[in-house]
Amino acid sequence: MKYYSYENFRDDTNSLIKQVKDYKPEIIVGIARGGLTLAHTMAEGLDVRDVQTIRTELYDDCDKRDSITIFGGCDFKDKKRVLVVDDIADSGDTLKAVMEHLSSKNSSVEFKTATLFYKNTSVYKPDVWINEAKGWIEFFWEADFKN
Amino acid sequence: MKYYSYENFRDDTNSLIKQVKDYKPEIIVGIARGGLTLAHTMAEGLDVRDVQTIRTELYDDCDKRDSITIFGGCDFKDKKRVLVVDDIADSGDTLKAVMEHLSSKNSSVEFKTATLFYKNTSVYKPDVWINEAKGWIEFFWEADFKN
Repeated sequence: MKYYSYENFRDDTNSLIKQVKDYKPEIIVGIARGGLTLAHTMAEGLDVRDVQTIRTELYDDCDKRDSITIFGGCDFKDKKRVLVVDDIADSGDTLKAVMEHLSSKNSSVEFKTATLFYKNTSVYKPDVWINEAKGWIEFFWEADFKN
Repeated sequence: MKYYSYENFRDDTNSLIKQVKDYKPEIIVGIARGGLTLAHTMAEGLDVRDVQTIRTELYDDCDKRDSITIFGGCDFKDKKRVLVVDDIADSGDTLKAVMEHLSSKNSSVEFKTATLFYKNTSVYKPDVWINEAKGWIEFFWEADFKN
């Protein structure tokens, strides 16, 4: 397990900001929980005021594939450029389900996706990502905050 | 202007987590943008999976008081304990408007509010807060992320 510190995050997020700034996103959607700090800090760096959240739950089902339920209605109004961010595209199931959901409801929006980590076995490949994930990552927001 | 580092934030957030853990929140609402990293990290520390976001915009109006518009529909279903978090209760206008809005729509929910900073001239006093704000604070999520 590899600890991913705030300093790692700061540097990687600034790289993501540089890579998407020409896209000029009007809205940033963070996938909860893992994408929330990334959504916040990218919004600050890109000066995007409209940050929204979407949340998923995975249901294990003995008989069929796991199913993902999506919560939280995003409202993009007349905006065209929406950046969706998450910490990691691991299996990719979450990002794939979220992007299918958002795209089907907002056909005139041009989406981009960004993650800090990407595993090459993921079923969804983000437009922009920084690190290839090779083992289990312990993010600072998991490790540093305890009950 | 005082720089508020990640290390300051980590320690203060862990204090907030200790102070609200007996309340056992079922949902955490972060007020965007300033409350998003706090919502994320408190949710991790408190093991709360349901994190939602609310966003406000302040409209300046020459003739009357500034008015605050609230975006983002929270959905608390049958949950009873909702923790609303923001970085700072400064004027307090945002938190006051958000709490009036949420309370009016969810009369059976017992809300609690938590912030990192509180200014003693704020029109809204959070249930839990850590630091008294005396001047302008530059949060690490503002200072460390640049376009």
